[in-house]
Amino acid sequence: MGLRYAVIGTGALGGYFGGKLANAGQDVHFLFHSDYAHVSTHGLKVDSVEGAFHLKPINAYQHTADMPVCDVVLVCLKTTANHLLPDLLPPLLKPSTLVILVQNGLGMEERLAQTFPHVSIAGALAFICATKRGPGYIEHMDFGKLTLGLHAREATGNVSHSAAEEALLQTVVTDFNQAGVESHFTGDLALARWKKLVWNVPYNGLCVVLNSSTDQLMNQADSLAILRNLMLEVIAGARACGHAIDDSFAQAMLDSTRSMRPYDPSMKQDFDFKRPLEIEAIYTNPLQTAAAAGQPLPRTQQLEQQLEYLQSLYSERR
Amino acid sequence: MGLRYAVIGTGALGGYFGGKLANAGQDVHFLFHSDYAHVSTHGLKVDSVEGAFHLKPINAYQHTADMPVCDVVLVCLKTTANHLLPDLLPPLLKPSTLVILVQNGLGMEERLAQTFPHVSIAGALAFICATKRGPGYIEHMDFGKLTLGLHAREATGNVSHSAAEEALLQTVVTDFNQAGVESHFTGDLALARWKKLVWNVPYNGLCVVLNSSTDQLMNQADSLAILRNLMLEVIAGARACGHAIDDSFAQAMLDSTRSMRPYDPSMKQDFDFKRPLEIEAIYTNPLQTAAAAGQPLPRTQQLEQQLEYLQSLYSERR
Repeated sequence: MGLRYAVIGTGALGGYFGGKLANAGQDVHFLFHSDYAHVSTHGLKVDSVEGAFHLKPINAYQHTADMPVCDVVLVCLKTTANHLLPDLLPPLLKPSTLVILVQNGLGMEERLAQTFPHVSIAGALAFICATKRGPGYIEHMDFGKLTLGLHAREATGNVSHSAAEEALLQTVVTDFNQAGVESHFTGDLALARWKKLVWNVPYNGLCVVLNSSTDQLMNQADSLAILRNLMLEVIAGARACGHAIDDSFAQAMLDSTRSMRPYDPSMKQDFDFKRPLEIEAIYTNPLQTAAAAGQPLPRTQQLEQQLEYLQSLYSERR
Repeated sequence: MGLRYAVIGTGALGGYFGGKLANAGQDVHFLFHSDYAHVSTHGLKVDSVEGAFHLKPINAYQHTADMPVCDVVLVCLKTTANHLLPDLLPPLLKPSTLVILVQNGLGMEERLAQTFPHVSIAGALAFICATKRGPGYIEHMDFGKLTLGLHAREATGNVSHSAAEEALLQTVVTDFNQAGVESHFTGDLALARWKKLVWNVPYNGLCVVLNSSTDQLMNQADSLAILRNLMLEVIAGARACGHAIDDSFAQAMLDSTRSMRPYDPSMKQDFDFKRPLEIEAIYTNPLQTAAAAGQPLPRTQQLEQQLEYLQSLYSERR
């Protein structure tokens, strides 16, 4: 008897990762927003470098109130929509449900834990180049890995997970691997999130501010210097917060990006479509966390403020 | 018997400041580049908030070889054209000639002194909103002050100026004031240049990178924070180099800018017309000078590198 999955937010990430599970025969229930009517009729199409697939019919819903209670909830919303979670999640929850935030940045699990103190929470880092090309139509261009870890709740100074939570997350990892998504369990989610920030902080923001794709930034000496300096600054921030990342990780990220196809990171895509930017999760929360540990990140802060300014030109400040 | 002036580079600054001298009856000789033919026929028009004037006829030249030897040479080129000075200056020089660099940034006097070790050199800071609207047509929108000081040559550790150099520069200050240009003599040119950088570093670069005018940057909290942080960083750099500027000078610059009309700084104008940007004088040289004094300026450096990158998108790197 397999797990029952919910996917909240079926965009590029939810469509790809949830779609892979469903395509492998798992019991997956998808929440759609604007694409609901289209997907009900036409299903969900995923054009992947690893082979296209088409989910039709698909367990598609417009409201979580219509969805079944699930063992695992994959939250694939943008972090800018996390304020919806207190309304969206309750119909899906039973005491053992594990909510996994498949999101970038820092601090989302903490906030969710404040609202749902008795719910098991995990986080997942997605290493993937994918984009939604149209209603119910996802394109997967490159990569496609997941790193999953439980959110460490601090109980009397100790990190506490139950054995049941860990076993459940390990099953999720197994399900993803069997579905063709290379997935890894990590015992240190916070470290994994900081390592992901080493990529996200420079590339997401600079692609927006300099109106460029990753390969353009890699091919000019000054933008490359900005990328490297931002990476080293984020690594210093991570270390100040107790997460051991070596400076050499910056060069590894640069090398890995050089091998990627040219790509517009998610924040660049959001900016081009005048959607809210994930500034809080990727910039503000890490800046505050590092500042609380006594480590200012001036380059990161300047980039954050540039992004806030550029976003303010097309959206009212929230 | 008045001084004979040369103006090298008759753009917005050369046209306005040289034009004011000529309009007041001084003996001024102007070097033109692309506007020469137009100005020979139609003269030089200056539309100023303090009253328009029209210099016709005008002492216009296409080559310095055709110009008379002068007492004072006002270099009003962009600093990006200073590599032309070794060719342009010699026909204008006699032993007592004072060359005044009416330019932004740092390090230009030092470089000129290397090429012309026996020439008297001064610098001038222009506080003015002006732009060239067309051939031989300058618009002066706001302000219009000059601060002038002799370049301190370090002879056996001592700053040395001759009494004759100082008397000549004082005469220039008097000429400008009598021509309606509020001008001040400073005994500390380096300090004056750093104080000007406190404005130029944030506004010139951010207006380019964020594609905005000064008033837009002043009216949003995040851009205002970037401006303030950059100012404080430049002030820290100045202090590390021995120039006493108080942190309160940042707020004074912000307040003064708020009272300005909306304005595109010169670098924004250069960028919009895909001209070379004065990155070296306004950013690179101050960064190197501060670094040599042990003071890194990470925010300024990141802005410098963003500008270099954006410039590289339209011009081959020099």
